[in-house]
Amino acid sequence: MSPDLHDPRLDLVLERVVDVPRALVWDAWTKPEHLIQWFAPAPWTTVDCEVDLRPGGIFRSVMRSPQGEDFPGVGCFLEIVEGRRLVWTDALGPGFRPSAKPFFTAIIALEDYGAGTKYTARALHKDETDRKTHEDMGFHTGWGTALDQLVALAKTL
Amino acid sequence: MSPDLHDPRLDLVLERVVDVPRALVWDAWTKPEHLIQWFAPAPWTTVDCEVDLRPGGIFRSVMRSPQGEDFPGVGCFLEIVEGRRLVWTDALGPGFRPSAKPFFTAIIALEDYGAGTKYTARALHKDETDRKTHEDMGFHTGWGTALDQLVALAKTL
Repeated sequence: MSPDLHDPRLDLVLERVVDVPRALVWDAWTKPEHLIQWFAPAPWTTVDCEVDLRPGGIFRSVMRSPQGEDFPGVGCFLEIVEGRRLVWTDALGPGFRPSAKPFFTAIIALEDYGAGTKYTARALHKDETDRKTHEDMGFHTGWGTALDQLVALAKTL
Repeated sequence: MSPDLHDPRLDLVLERVVDVPRALVWDAWTKPEHLIQWFAPAPWTTVDCEVDLRPGGIFRSVMRSPQGEDFPGVGCFLEIVEGRRLVWTDALGPGFRPSAKPFFTAIIALEDYGAGTKYTARALHKDETDRKTHEDMGFHTGWGTALDQLVALAKTL
């Protein structure tokens, strides 16, 4: 597993206990037919996504704003520990090729917590400026709302 | 294994058959005490290096120019297939954190070829400008000379 090198000046973290089992959280994150339902915080929507779940495999999504503008995002997966840990970045594209707009790496960690799951999402940035930009874009509200949506979906699975 | 998404406009490739066994080429690439002896093409030298051989683990080297100036480089490993495939990038640092100076991803592939090894080193860039910059820095001569040095070292192992 990759080394955990946390840096509070450079990272943004969403940590929460949710009342759905770990396996369902994993499915919601890794199956495109689920992901498309929760990934963008409302009133934004996800209108397309692509998941090739292996290191170097594509992770692509298109988010649509309430005004109808589409924002495509593409990156690749870096590390997959079935049911427990998912790492991806937009600093590399499919096949690990460096990307034109590197911004962050996401580490999603899942642990059993009673009948539920301790969910930790961490966004890693290269410097404090990028961390602050992401924070000002609404990281905490956005990722929190998306997690609410994930939980609501998982309860229907 | 990661998808191979080659693009001749964006990649630089060094492909050669060398007369040393695959296992020794692998050792030369992955053991710091060997790497430090061949990694910089003479008259440059490698004066320090660090290898944490796992996805997200650090890959750091310091090259010294003939004029005595030191050039540190830091990146991380992305994919390790023992004896066969080594992928690393400077677009991410240790722990997969996006780096300040992303430039290329390297894919080193080794195949048995008689008693020797078919050696393929591929450098992936985000655009043609970066590919050309790397080419003009002397990619082919530099990586070729370093491979000669690797082979010479491997024959002593």
